[in-house]
Amino acid sequence: MKIDVKPMTIRVPGFRFGAAACGLKESGKRDIGLIVSDVPAVAVAAFTSNRVQAAPVQIGKERMRGGRLQAVLVNSGNANAYTGRDGVRVARELCALAAQRLGISQRLVLPSSTGRIGVQLPRETVRKGVLAACRDLNADGFQRALEGIMTTDAFPKFAVEGVVVDGREITVAGMAKGAGMIAPRMLPHATLLSYILTDASVTRPALRKALDLALPQSFNAAVVDGDTSTNDTVLLLANGAARNRPLTPTAREFPAFAGAVARVMRALARMVVKDGEGATKLIDISVRRARTVADAERVADAIARSPLCKTAFYGGDPYAGRIVCAAGYSGANFDPNRLDVFLDDVQIVRRGLETVGKVEERAAKVVAQPEFTLTLDLHAGRAVAHRMASDLSVDYVRFNSDYRT
Amino acid sequence: MKIDVKPMTIRVPGFRFGAAACGLKESGKRDIGLIVSDVPAVAVAAFTSNRVQAAPVQIGKERMRGGRLQAVLVNSGNANAYTGRDGVRVARELCALAAQRLGISQRLVLPSSTGRIGVQLPRETVRKGVLAACRDLNADGFQRALEGIMTTDAFPKFAVEGVVVDGREITVAGMAKGAGMIAPRMLPHATLLSYILTDASVTRPALRKALDLALPQSFNAAVVDGDTSTNDTVLLLANGAARNRPLTPTAREFPAFAGAVARVMRALARMVVKDGEGATKLIDISVRRARTVADAERVADAIARSPLCKTAFYGGDPYAGRIVCAAGYSGANFDPNRLDVFLDDVQIVRRGLETVGKVEERAAKVVAQPEFTLTLDLHAGRAVAHRMASDLSVDYVRFNSDYRT
Repeated sequence: MKIDVKPMTIRVPGFRFGAAACGLKESGKRDIGLIVSDVPAVAVAAFTSNRVQAAPVQIGKERMRGGRLQAVLVNSGNANAYTGRDGVRVARELCALAAQRLGISQRLVLPSSTGRIGVQLPRETVRKGVLAACRDLNADGFQRALEGIMTTDAFPKFAVEGVVVDGREITVAGMAKGAGMIAPRMLPHATLLSYILTDASVTRPALRKALDLALPQSFNAAVVDGDTSTNDTVLLLANGAARNRPLTPTAREFPAFAGAVARVMRALARMVVKDGEGATKLIDISVRRARTVADAERVADAIARSPLCKTAFYGGDPYAGRIVCAAGYSGANFDPNRLDVFLDDVQIVRRGLETVGKVEERAAKVVAQPEFTLTLDLHAGRAVAHRMASDLSVDYVRFNSDYRT
Repeated sequence: MKIDVKPMTIRVPGFRFGAAACGLKESGKRDIGLIVSDVPAVAVAAFTSNRVQAAPVQIGKERMRGGRLQAVLVNSGNANAYTGRDGVRVARELCALAAQRLGISQRLVLPSSTGRIGVQLPRETVRKGVLAACRDLNADGFQRALEGIMTTDAFPKFAVEGVVVDGREITVAGMAKGAGMIAPRMLPHATLLSYILTDASVTRPALRKALDLALPQSFNAAVVDGDTSTNDTVLLLANGAARNRPLTPTAREFPAFAGAVARVMRALARMVVKDGEGATKLIDISVRRARTVADAERVADAIARSPLCKTAFYGGDPYAGRIVCAAGYSGANFDPNRLDVFLDDVQIVRRGLETVGKVEERAAKVVAQPEFTLTLDLHAGRAVAHRMASDLSVDYVRFNSDYRT
């Protein structure tokens, strides 16, 4: 899906950004992104639940134990996943190189990689990129760093919110990359790469809580193809440059801050789905009155991942049968004879029976839109779930049967 | 995938077959298939695990309690699923009509339907079809009945084996339909429509055992799109026309009989995958040395369903990274650093690292074939699993974004 993005400069006080093109991408586009805080920032993160964890994820988990980070070094064009001990060693070396140039401890540098799985990082090539990105650091480089982390993305994904805390205007700015290998996993597991930066002063428990509140409604609700990547990372950094009184989880102003974080993450996750490989539509799948949250999620996930539902959405076909079938095999406990299904406000299933007459024409109009909501009311309890899903198009298959970068 | 089928006449002693074209299909092709045994036959079956169960499945489960059936009445072009009480009533009526014409109890007639979900069966239309199929009954009608049960199938699926039991030559003949909405579910749940007929004399426990042995290795190992249908039915009928001493589960000749049933079912399941909607390839996914069977199945299913793996297979890309990634998120417990992966006999991953050099060229040749085997050795235990999967092609999406019958 093509989206026009107006150029704008994003600044987050106390953060600088660098980028470089060192040759990891055949296109010659930027392939290194560097984010540096002036001081060590409070850091919380969520990583992929995949058992195969990329080298940078292994190192990143270890470095999160310190609770603070000062720099994030990202490369695109190579996932450094499934690269064994060599992959870990090279990632450590590159972080150490950046740390040395920045005059900080290497333990404060988190590595991230994205791109093809199973290929060793070309050490010397990336070293040059790291040095160039360090030289490039400046407060206005947010967009360039973002370009450096993109792979199959059709457009850059970022979102910014201002929020007043303790009388001070603070900024919450996020960037994300990702278009394929997108599927939700339960907390504290995340999908794709995203870095959320704020100059707020926040305690680590409060930052953790903000992440935990936002994740299920944002990246963990995003489904493109149902494949969960080996590299997914969501990172929140708060450097305190705004000098507000540190926000705690129980602070009066915590909800305002957490709300801004949640909105930024949700906006980014929506962009990831909109930019889903080959996607032509974004479908908000809303399941309500399920017996349990797990049941609601089972139904939403089954539909979000069903090739038959996704191809029907692509074709603009309001085919209730496929939706009901996916709900049926999801494993959720509900009575099919009580089910209601809506496309936006058009009811296509009432108490387990398809509605007939003019409804089909109206439903087809809903499914023809680039965005619509599919609601299933199970009449089984009070739990709800939400997913943002892309459709499955001819271009998805074309693209992924041809992808070699 | 196009397969040439030579016309041949299949006979199973003591069975007759009928077919009719009553207008359920826009194409005007046969849409009713009828199988009738001369005497009540011992019957065992497996049905879909989908919570939404088509009217014929609901009735079929009820009728299986009697342990014997004499006729199977199938319509294609309409699944009679998600059609509420009216759907059940019409299916009962149609069975009663056939029973009356055949002079048997309606409790001995099992209904089956396949086609679009959510549309009421046109009662009068199908009544005419049932009457015509009853008039059409004859011992040589196997192929015509098979045509009557087909929907999106590109070719008819049948298999026959002869086996000597108790000095008598007995026949095991199976027919199947199905190309989409194909995904495995655990025993005793089956996928798609398939009827296996034999003139052997078999006790019901022995017939049950033969089905239970064959199912995990045949239909429950077949994955096209990962959507489990509302109508799936596998039925074994043994009418005893061969007059052998009744086979029991412990009979000396039971393995020979069960082997024939298993081979017939496996051949049919393979054809279903080969004819998978848009499929250009059949991939045998073999997982070995897993800690548990559940783990082995998790890995095999994850790969069999992964859009990224399936599009890579379609594109002829031996992309180990996607395979390893799917194994990683499958939920199975294994050490990625001990994993070996083979495409036929070409090792593409050795102890958690991609093999390099000329391997890629050889691996690409393997993936270019219409059939190949993908083997994952987890080095975690002794359990194995097998799946037969189709690839995911541009035509799958084209077809399913346009399917309205």
